[in-house]
Amino acid sequence: MAKKLITFGEVMMRLSPPGYGKFSQASSFELVYGGGEANVAISCAYLGMKAAHVTRFPDNALGKAATQFLRKHWLSTEHVIYGDDMLGKYFLEKGAVHRPSVVIYEREGSSFSLIEPSMVNWDEVLKDADWFHWTGITPAISDGAAMCCLEAIKTANKLGITVSGDINSRSNMWKYGKTMQEVMPELVQNCDIVLSSTHGIHEIFGIGQLGGKFRFSAKGLMDTFPRIKKVVGKKRKSISASHQQIQGKMWNGHEYIKTERLNITHVIDRVGTGDAFASGLIYGLLHYGDDMQALNFASAACALKHTVPGDVNMVSLENVQSLMAGDTSGAIRR
Amino acid sequence: MAKKLITFGEVMMRLSPPGYGKFSQASSFELVYGGGEANVAISCAYLGMKAAHVTRFPDNALGKAATQFLRKHWLSTEHVIYGDDMLGKYFLEKGAVHRPSVVIYEREGSSFSLIEPSMVNWDEVLKDADWFHWTGITPAISDGAAMCCLEAIKTANKLGITVSGDINSRSNMWKYGKTMQEVMPELVQNCDIVLSSTHGIHEIFGIGQLGGKFRFSAKGLMDTFPRIKKVVGKKRKSISASHQQIQGKMWNGHEYIKTERLNITHVIDRVGTGDAFASGLIYGLLHYGDDMQALNFASAACALKHTVPGDVNMVSLENVQSLMAGDTSGAIRR
Amino acid sequence: MAKKLITFGEVMMRLSPPGYGKFSQASSFELVYGGGEANVAISCAYLGMKAAHVTRFPDNALGKAATQFLRKHWLSTEHVIYGDDMLGKYFLEKGAVHRPSVVIYEREGSSFSLIEPSMVNWDEVLKDADWFHWTGITPAISDGAAMCCLEAIKTANKLGITVSGDINSRSNMWKYGKTMQEVMPELVQNCDIVLSSTHGIHEIFGIGQLGGKFRFSAKGLMDTFPRIKKVVGKKRKSISASHQQIQGKMWNGHEYIKTERLNITHVIDRVGTGDAFASGLIYGLLHYGDDMQALNFASAACALKHTVPGDVNMVSLENVQSLMAGDTSGAIRR
Amino acid sequence: MAKKLITFGEVMMRLSPPGYGKFSQASSFELVYGGGEANVAISCAYLGMKAAHVTRFPDNALGKAATQFLRKHWLSTEHVIYGDDMLGKYFLEKGAVHRPSVVIYEREGSSFSLIEPSMVNWDEVLKDADWFHWTGITPAISDGAAMCCLEAIKTANKLGITVSGDINSRSNMWKYGKTMQEVMPELVQNCDIVLSSTHGIHEIFGIGQLGGKFRFSAKGLMDTFPRIKKVVGKKRKSISASHQQIQGKMWNGHEYIKTERLNITHVIDRVGTGDAFASGLIYGLLHYGDDMQALNFASAACALKHTVPGDVNMVSLENVQSLMAGDTSGAIRR
Amino acid sequence: MAKKLITFGEVMMRLSPPGYGKFSQASSFELVYGGGEANVAISCAYLGMKAAHVTRFPDNALGKAATQFLRKHWLSTEHVIYGDDMLGKYFLEKGAVHRPSVVIYEREGSSFSLIEPSMVNWDEVLKDADWFHWTGITPAISDGAAMCCLEAIKTANKLGITVSGDINSRSNMWKYGKTMQEVMPELVQNCDIVLSSTHGIHEIFGIGQLGGKFRFSAKGLMDTFPRIKKVVGKKRKSISASHQQIQGKMWNGHEYIKTERLNITHVIDRVGTGDAFASGLIYGLLHYGDDMQALNFASAACALKHTVPGDVNMVSLENVQSLMAGDTSGAIRR
Amino acid sequence: MAKKLITFGEVMMRLSPPGYGKFSQASSFELVYGGGEANVAISCAYLGMKAAHVTRFPDNALGKAATQFLRKHWLSTEHVIYGDDMLGKYFLEKGAVHRPSVVIYEREGSSFSLIEPSMVNWDEVLKDADWFHWTGITPAISDGAAMCCLEAIKTANKLGITVSGDINSRSNMWKYGKTMQEVMPELVQNCDIVLSSTHGIHEIFGIGQLGGKFRFSAKGLMDTFPRIKKVVGKKRKSISASHQQIQGKMWNGHEYIKTERLNITHVIDRVGTGDAFASGLIYGLLHYGDDMQALNFASAACALKHTVPGDVNMVSLENVQSLMAGDTSGAIRR
Repeated sequence: MAKKLITFGEVMMRLSPPGYGKFSQASSFELVYGGGEANVAISCAYLGMKAAHVTRFPDNALGKAATQFLRKHWLSTEHVIYGDDMLGKYFLEKGAVHRPSVVIYEREGSSFSLIEPSMVNWDEVLKDADWFHWTGITPAISDGAAMCCLEAIKTANKLGITVSGDINSRSNMWKYGKTMQEVMPELVQNCDIVLSSTHGIHEIFGIGQLGGKFRFSAKGLMDTFPRIKKVVGKKRKSISASHQQIQGKMWNGHEYIKTERLNITHVIDRVGTGDAFASGLIYGLLHYGDDMQALNFASAACALKHTVPGDVNMVSLENVQSLMAGDTSGAIRR
Repeated sequence: MAKKLITFGEVMMRLSPPGYGKFSQASSFELVYGGGEANVAISCAYLGMKAAHVTRFPDNALGKAATQFLRKHWLSTEHVIYGDDMLGKYFLEKGAVHRPSVVIYEREGSSFSLIEPSMVNWDEVLKDADWFHWTGITPAISDGAAMCCLEAIKTANKLGITVSGDINSRSNMWKYGKTMQEVMPELVQNCDIVLSSTHGIHEIFGIGQLGGKFRFSAKGLMDTFPRIKKVVGKKRKSISASHQQIQGKMWNGHEYIKTERLNITHVIDRVGTGDAFASGLIYGLLHYGDDMQALNFASAACALKHTVPGDVNMVSLENVQSLMAGDTSGAIRR
Repeated sequence: MAKKLITFGEVMMRLSPPGYGKFSQASSFELVYGGGEANVAISCAYLGMKAAHVTRFPDNALGKAATQFLRKHWLSTEHVIYGDDMLGKYFLEKGAVHRPSVVIYEREGSSFSLIEPSMVNWDEVLKDADWFHWTGITPAISDGAAMCCLEAIKTANKLGITVSGDINSRSNMWKYGKTMQEVMPELVQNCDIVLSSTHGIHEIFGIGQLGGKFRFSAKGLMDTFPRIKKVVGKKRKSISASHQQIQGKMWNGHEYIKTERLNITHVIDRVGTGDAFASGLIYGLLHYGDDMQALNFASAACALKHTVPGDVNMVSLENVQSLMAGDTSGAIRR
Repeated sequence: MAKKLITFGEVMMRLSPPGYGKFSQASSFELVYGGGEANVAISCAYLGMKAAHVTRFPDNALGKAATQFLRKHWLSTEHVIYGDDMLGKYFLEKGAVHRPSVVIYEREGSSFSLIEPSMVNWDEVLKDADWFHWTGITPAISDGAAMCCLEAIKTANKLGITVSGDINSRSNMWKYGKTMQEVMPELVQNCDIVLSSTHGIHEIFGIGQLGGKFRFSAKGLMDTFPRIKKVVGKKRKSISASHQQIQGKMWNGHEYIKTERLNITHVIDRVGTGDAFASGLIYGLLHYGDDMQALNFASAACALKHTVPGDVNMVSLENVQSLMAGDTSGAIRR
Repeated sequence: MAKKLITFGEVMMRLSPPGYGKFSQASSFELVYGGGEANVAISCAYLGMKAAHVTRFPDNALGKAATQFLRKHWLSTEHVIYGDDMLGKYFLEKGAVHRPSVVIYEREGSSFSLIEPSMVNWDEVLKDADWFHWTGITPAISDGAAMCCLEAIKTANKLGITVSGDINSRSNMWKYGKTMQEVMPELVQNCDIVLSSTHGIHEIFGIGQLGGKFRFSAKGLMDTFPRIKKVVGKKRKSISASHQQIQGKMWNGHEYIKTERLNITHVIDRVGTGDAFASGLIYGLLHYGDDMQALNFASAACALKHTVPGDVNMVSLENVQSLMAGDTSGAIRR
Repeated sequence: MAKKLITFGEVMMRLSPPGYGKFSQASSFELVYGGGEANVAISCAYLGMKAAHVTRFPDNALGKAATQFLRKHWLSTEHVIYGDDMLGKYFLEKGAVHRPSVVIYEREGSSFSLIEPSMVNWDEVLKDADWFHWTGITPAISDGAAMCCLEAIKTANKLGITVSGDINSRSNMWKYGKTMQEVMPELVQNCDIVLSSTHGIHEIFGIGQLGGKFRFSAKGLMDTFPRIKKVVGKKRKSISASHQQIQGKMWNGHEYIKTERLNITHVIDRVGTGDAFASGLIYGLLHYGDDMQALNFASAACALKHTVPGDVNMVSLENVQSLMAGDTSGAIRR
């Protein structure tokens, strides 16, 4: 029977000029929706898992349309809550080669940022789940979001559900009066699986060294938070905005493993590739009894996302398994 | 030499599903910009006047793009100021026949709403202007916007520039702690020309009767605020979302005049038709020595706007004069 | 608690040239999905009901995409079944004024047409439903579809669920060896509510007269099939492809009622207006204790659908109630 | 066996902003091709006739693309000639209601305008034709075009092929040094069928009275040019750019006939409606042994064109016959 | 004088999501038409040859539109026949890098598959042709299609017209009861030129070895079928869906030749590149008295097709010759 | 305070099929405007300079729309003059890999080509400028254009404004009776900065050797025209239409410098990259006191333009500086 994933976080309306046009050239915007955690849930759903996302939208036609996007892409939305007036948004101008993409966020005061503890009945939400996933973006948004996230993690712990956290966020996101250093420890200590960069582990917890080896940072993190069983990272080399390389790495408490480097020579859409990695890791750990295979699965999922427009990895299980098995040819099988 | 108009107010990004699609059907949004006062300025510019708009945009690529829209449509933008992070927005789902359009605003906390007195150097802005125009939406947005508007009006008075105000706003817009009844009198008493409905005059000032005759309300308003020289209204009959009728009316202190009813049988875009009326009135009063002709000009401009997509009336002077002269045939002249 | 509707029937991919373009002009097709019964379910869902649709799609990415369309528009799709290779399709070239629309069907051999009895577990599907709706198109498609439909109706009867049938179909649809005269009686005799035209009642059952009064045909039908409690019809006057008038009528066993005529002067999309009528009737009968109000609700829903692109009526409950209350102005309420 | 029509004239690239957008709003242009005479040929081809168009295009990819447009829409293009560099063009901004369409021509110096006598082998072109059609636009373009047209007419006369001329053009088109009064008589005297307005007959030949009765002008024209067998006109009432009425009229030497008025309440594209009338007339005279039926056919074709985007009437024979028979309902026949 | 090519085979409507979108993301489809044999004919026509395609379409507006596509792209269509109801279709989701394209066919029961012997008058069709080309897809579709193909080949033999066959097809296409091993020998033995892979020669005829050298398989084929004068292959290396390499190879009975490898680093559309190779081979053999030049021409045409959207190679003779001459720079010549 | 640039030259409407489509596939054109000199001005404006462009447009809605494009992209347009009827145009079919782009010009007889001396008041235009830039295209268009350009250069000399000329043009552009060898010397001798290729210097002035070293040609040019202070070139290697390399080089009278080669692996739009180089040079020379930095700035600007759709480089100062500093990663900075 299909495994069930629950995710929690903000979903934003994403507006982007068609093709490689700049904001100054746009007379229309392409419209999709995305958010780090929902991206993970949808990607897992495309791989065959059951998945539900918990979020808060404005109680208007735009909030409904955002919910409809999640439903269309296979999520359960019965735990979406509605209130207040503003849907978080981001504007994306897609770059190429030496020209970086431009991202403009408008999420202050969004319905999600105004979420408060007890608005979600986590016992109900998590009752038949196998996995709960959160990211470091959520506690950065508002105190209420951080507290809701903690509620979720604790309920998951109580129910014996695996918890994974993709803990990085940008420090300039934290505007509501608390710092990541204050807030994150309590969230992270209750996690089973942590996704982070060396940089993130150092910035948040002062563990490891900037520019140091991932395995030492990971080990340091696990020493501090003994519940954590695996720390997983992703090395990205940005040859240009149009050419990326990625590689997965993991410290699982006894062994450091890493994947082959995957070479994405013609990037279609870079957004959400980290979320695709996380979704692949979750799927992999749940379906393969082997960390190396799980990590390979995660890397393959991540590489494939670079070729899918939008925030979300909509590739099939067969696509991921084929790339994971080393077929980089992109050849059609008829 | 061309007459010069200055307007002040928020300009919003307008996002709408293509054609008659509903929000739940959209996978892209058409993008234009609009705002009651800038709409007036641009329409006057298309008629041949000089026009500058004063507003405040976020200091990012979206704020620049909004400015570029104003520049493209002939406005001077050297007095636009930049600061804070959010561009006001509205979402428009276009209705038809019995199905009303849906409008969703997201303007709370916008860069414009955070404007404060003294941010604009009104002496500089207004120094070579002939006319200043504002609307009742601006003081409804925030205290700062209301105060800036008052600064502008007083400076215009000082410099001997005609001031017109299109004073209606929706009472549910007033969320910052002051009411329209408190704020509007000081703004209106310094106006030369007022555009309003009977309803608005009653709601704001308690003058006239709901459902009463426009001329009595207008007369009452002029009795209260003796600077006002003309009160102008527009009667709209909404036969359906696709079929509208409009008629201009004016009390100029000694005579009540009204235009023939214009019948817009195939509405393309209703938004901004009131602003087109105001722009026509301003142009008409500045270029015809006759209130009836000015009012006819305003009504014709208003009728034509119903057939132009977007917020702004981009028709030519020749278009307005031809309709004003009674040619409703829409026939091409080659 | 929300009432639950179950519908059963084919859902087709609908492909149409943009705007009013002809097939010979198209270089792209607009893509939506639709089918008489699913249209009813989705419309009811937009009005606030719970709704699930039962159908059969090919087991490929197109079948999945069709399911995703249903999910997006609020339907439960857990009872969709997959098999075979072809998705039913129709091509629509939209007409205007004197130019009729052109519809080309490609549904022979579709996955749905190959459905067979027992493929659907109707006891499971219908277990918590309040209403089951089918149309005369389904039994016209194939023997298997007809038998599945009969299974559903009988199960609904057994479970005490109201059954409505919109029984008309075109006689040239019946190609699999049975005639409507053979097949329909067994289906109709188990219905509680029948939607039909005078023409349909005469063609299928030989009851009433062509061109005769609806009430006599309805009465004749109810005499023959005593389970039927109401026979409901819709009078359409096609002034042109762009201008339609509709009027609801009902014989409920003791009284003949009809609604005011609604005048749709600017048709956006005529397809699915009959389904919108049926959905309004179902909603109305379930939520108003009054046949006249239910019929008014149905007519208003039908009229509004003419202004929504696609097969499906996505208007809100408020829209229908407002038109039902006589507000034909299409005016925005802000 | 299908009758064969030959037409001669310029074909222009037509560029128009999408929908009802103005030139100042366009970031793309919709692209079709059209020209008065080719429009007639294509419309006849859609009705089932054989048709070839003779024109001259630049010898580059744009000239080839224009030819491909004609081929796609069923014309024979083996007599198209290539040379020089510029494709004639027109820009169309579509009006609505009181707002007239705007048309901007760029055809000076086009490849067609540089055509010269003897470039076309008319004996070869016309050898198996039944009808030759030209319009008054061609001789207005250049001396070479006028001379080529005369060659064609004379060859048609020699071969016993019916010649029709739609003789109106705008006097401000005539820029190459000759006037319509000089050039047209020799062309018209060799015609069998003339389409013109009362105004045109007066302007070109000084025959009849401005505002006078069509039949008197027509009679006068036939008195002057005895080869002419029928003079045909079309009365258009432009209620607005979105609502037109048309009516056909004919003097056939012994009787004055006219059709019912057709009411096109929702105009999609007015361009080419006169050409659709001419094509309907040609088809009608060739296929009905009755002037009244031919004229009804012409009017019905003309009315239908108002609902087809682009320059060309792509409706089917069945569409025209149905409207000609009085069915104005636009109802689909399934 | 231009050489004339006749081709025979199914033409399908091709529907694809815009850009790199997945089926689950599409709200419209881009529409072109294509089929292996018609692709060859059109490509040859763009190179300057005369070409006619023989196929069978449904007798409706979609069949007409498909014919119009062929006409637009320079084919003669007077031998297209019409009947039955369904146009073959394929859906294409374009892949990138590691993500393979997805192709879904819907061609069972198509009008073409229902073609029967004697429906085409091959003596008439082929009377002035220089070359007849068919592919292994046609006999895979249906018994009738296979028999028609055989009729064509035999007639071509009789008339002394060169016959080429691109003989590969997928074995899972053969669903009508006969196998490729039964059907193909009679077709291939009457060919002058065969295009195939080593794999195909082995699969169909049991000749040569899987993974063996092309020249040995080719030689074996020519030993078995002595009419064959050249066997031509194409080596493709799929570095990724976005990066392909191709190389032509030929055994002409006495010598094995191959081209340089061409490196297509930014694939736009891979579909139809094999057909472009075949068209280049036909053009090359007809216009160069040298197998090596013909093969170079074929490879260059194939490489260029990878950069043209749609199924068909629309590049110019100059484009092919320039690349064939070694200019890989893609530089504009002004 | 921002430096001010004045440019002079034709601005054309640019029409291109969407994406990589060929002219034969287009049913719409994407619309932008461009011209070598205006491209330079706009690019400088995006970098923060003040810029005005002087040109001549037809006095109609298309000329206005072209002006609006310039205004939108930050130029002052108060010196644009209007007259005559035709807007210069070019059609662009975008190539890829081995397939070259196709460009078709239609500029003969354009409003700009009909410009005459004294139409522009250069003293007024140049009064507060810091730099004047022209290109070799302008004198190639018409005698009037050449004379206006000379007027501008002489006025700039008189006012002490730096003059730069990008002197290359294609010899087949010179159609009005004078040759580049006759016209260019007088223009170039009054320049301070010259951009040219070795080829151009040889072709126009017979200086240096074809295929010779740039520095020798540059030195020869400066020996002949002693006012010139720097000669600047750009080496382009066209690996394919999709992959370009560029490198800047300069002889400044005492030293030969060149930049690192920049590698643009995924070209979006090659048009205007030379203009981007010139704009970067102007900005660089005005803002860096160092030729090497100025040249690096120019090369970085040029490289970035390859990734921006349209004729114009709309990248930010920060983008250029970042690439100039060696960051080729295209990574987003958040």
